[in-house]
Amino acid sequence: MTRVHNFGAGPSVLPPEVMEQVQREMLDFAGTGMSVLEVSHRSRPFDQVVNDAEARVRDLLGVPATHSVLFVQGGATTQFAAVWYNLLASQVVRSRFPAGAPAPPADYLVTGTWSRKAAEEVTRLGGRVNVAFDAAQSPSTGRAYTGVPPTAEWQTTGPRSRDAAYVYYCDNETVNGVEWDAVPDVHPDTVLVCDISSNAMSRPVDVARFGIIFAGAQKNMGPAGVTVVIVRNDLLVRTGPDHPYVPFPTMLDYEVARAHRSLYNTPPTFAIYVCDLVFKWIQERGGVAGMAERSQAKLAALTPVLDGSTLYRCPVAARYRSRMNVVLTLTRPELEAAFLAGAQQRGMVQLKGHRSVGGIRISLYNALDLASVQALAAYMVAFEREHAT
Amino acid sequence: MTRVHNFGAGPSVLPPEVMEQVQREMLDFAGTGMSVLEVSHRSRPFDQVVNDAEARVRDLLGVPATHSVLFVQGGATTQFAAVWYNLLASQVVRSRFPAGAPAPPADYLVTGTWSRKAAEEVTRLGGRVNVAFDAAQSPSTGRAYTGVPPTAEWQTTGPRSRDAAYVYYCDNETVNGVEWDAVPDVHPDTVLVCDISSNAMSRPVDVARFGIIFAGAQKNMGPAGVTVVIVRNDLLVRTGPDHPYVPFPTMLDYEVARAHRSLYNTPPTFAIYVCDLVFKWIQERGGVAGMAERSQAKLAALTPVLDGSTLYRCPVAARYRSRMNVVLTLTRPELEAAFLAGAQQRGMVQLKGHRSVGGIRISLYNALDLASVQALAAYMVAFEREHAT
Repeated sequence: MTRVHNFGAGPSVLPPEVMEQVQREMLDFAGTGMSVLEVSHRSRPFDQVVNDAEARVRDLLGVPATHSVLFVQGGATTQFAAVWYNLLASQVVRSRFPAGAPAPPADYLVTGTWSRKAAEEVTRLGGRVNVAFDAAQSPSTGRAYTGVPPTAEWQTTGPRSRDAAYVYYCDNETVNGVEWDAVPDVHPDTVLVCDISSNAMSRPVDVARFGIIFAGAQKNMGPAGVTVVIVRNDLLVRTGPDHPYVPFPTMLDYEVARAHRSLYNTPPTFAIYVCDLVFKWIQERGGVAGMAERSQAKLAALTPVLDGSTLYRCPVAARYRSRMNVVLTLTRPELEAAFLAGAQQRGMVQLKGHRSVGGIRISLYNALDLASVQALAAYMVAFEREHAT
Repeated sequence: MTRVHNFGAGPSVLPPEVMEQVQREMLDFAGTGMSVLEVSHRSRPFDQVVNDAEARVRDLLGVPATHSVLFVQGGATTQFAAVWYNLLASQVVRSRFPAGAPAPPADYLVTGTWSRKAAEEVTRLGGRVNVAFDAAQSPSTGRAYTGVPPTAEWQTTGPRSRDAAYVYYCDNETVNGVEWDAVPDVHPDTVLVCDISSNAMSRPVDVARFGIIFAGAQKNMGPAGVTVVIVRNDLLVRTGPDHPYVPFPTMLDYEVARAHRSLYNTPPTFAIYVCDLVFKWIQERGGVAGMAERSQAKLAALTPVLDGSTLYRCPVAARYRSRMNVVLTLTRPELEAAFLAGAQQRGMVQLKGHRSVGGIRISLYNALDLASVQALAAYMVAFEREHAT
């Protein structure tokens, strides 16, 4: 069999070295005579995997001792609810507001589909959401998810969200191809929360600045079915009766996950095991700084094709173009099907844009090889030349 | 390498034929040139897996058209909350009670650790729980999880729980080794909810009798990380403003999962894929009736050892002894470590009882071979003889 060039947005390409190890060990994990699928989550060999995975996340992202690393289930969508439940029940958060006052609002910075959905989830739960901006409503972004409006436009709760329970944003919008170029400058009194599902471990991050930072694994870190949550421990102390909060499921409670080291109930053992192998693979290639370099090399192979093109158009402002998901439309949309079919014939797959926006999406995650991008770039140039009018 | 005899309570032994197929296909799934870990959950090959897995569950358990089959995340523990949220928001459930009345209680039949935890979760969420009985408090069971108290003792909400929102029980208590020998006889007006995590697909079940029946996969059906929920569709219609209910997370909403065919967000693709292969393996061996026969054969190999023993003692009443998890104590507890060490030397692993109860636990799930039970039985006889006083 021939491996294809996999540009999928997630679940997505994983390192071949990791896949081969998973295959080799499938029937006998760590000399146990059992598959990794068959060992108890309370066994010593699996305990080693969880410890190892946590240590590698700490190493790769420089997680300070003030923060816990949790492995949970349900994808980022589950975290949309968990973030609100946990922070509105946090003594650190609530003690900033008068006793007996209604629960404070949370500020959401909406740059695309996923940050919008995160805000909608809190509204669903009955929480107070303040959308500080929605780029799809802002004249500065052409009323579309093409970048981040200037801070002067943000309608925050108090100066720089000082009076918000927390500020939420999504560092890289997978569907829209919009990536923040810096951490938003919020008031030190509030709590910063960030979804890094689709650019986790692709560049260094200053974890200390965040109250909560989380990522579904299935893009840059491993298979679908596990989510990494990094949370500041002091936020997990519960507030008292002066600040009533909404009770919430045990499985969404970060303090339960922390106290049980992600083993409150049976965790997704296989997914954690594969993540651990991917973390090791990243460590062996220069860590997240190494991944950032790989990313730059891939962009360097692709960007000239886009810059010199009259066919391929990226709607995102240059400053906010995602390094992970390059979203394109064709100026001649009638060629889209032929473009995708030709790519498929050449073994370049999963290039179709998200069903909500259409077009083409080129995902350039950590495990994608430069050679795949070079092959795609060559095809794109040839395709444009072939269809020149 | 030699495969061991795996008596683990979960994650537990899986069919070797399935493991070998998973290994073979790891680098190239369904001719895609990608690992199953790398394909989009929205791709045709994975769609086929979900369809297939659903069809096989329907076939194996005889799921009627009135019910949906969902694949969700978070283990049975997440369902402890989801059951309550969904049913208290159900028009069918709430319309049985007067408008404006407080939300109705749910009846819990507590036969062990997991049904107790399920009740505790609803209390945590602010729900009204009526523990119809807790076997650990009942004189008829010796105030321990050793069976089901007689129905005359049950303190139900109304006759046969007629006035309860729903009745909840756990068909097989993995920790305590207690299995119901029949479906509890509840009033037809209420809704029956059952956790079959550790005996799913080990015997036929009349799904039509249940409003919700669910199981974590990691015992009889596949790897950890996916939970199968079967729910009666008419229960998913939301009640109106006359019956206020607690808003709850999208990811716990069965109607969202149903409407999106378990693909609202990225599902645990690999776990569903392995389950599908296990379902096929069960189908090829006579379905759940075939599994029930296999189970009887395994019990027939083990039971004489227990019956003739003065060393091994099962605390559970004969009628309620689990066919899946045989829980034992030694009448000479000082021999427990030697028993486990000797077993380990002979390649018989994961026999230690749950950390909350100690002792020995022999799990006899679908994929465990009769030969493993025969080997264990022979060892148990020899061990008892060797240590006869």
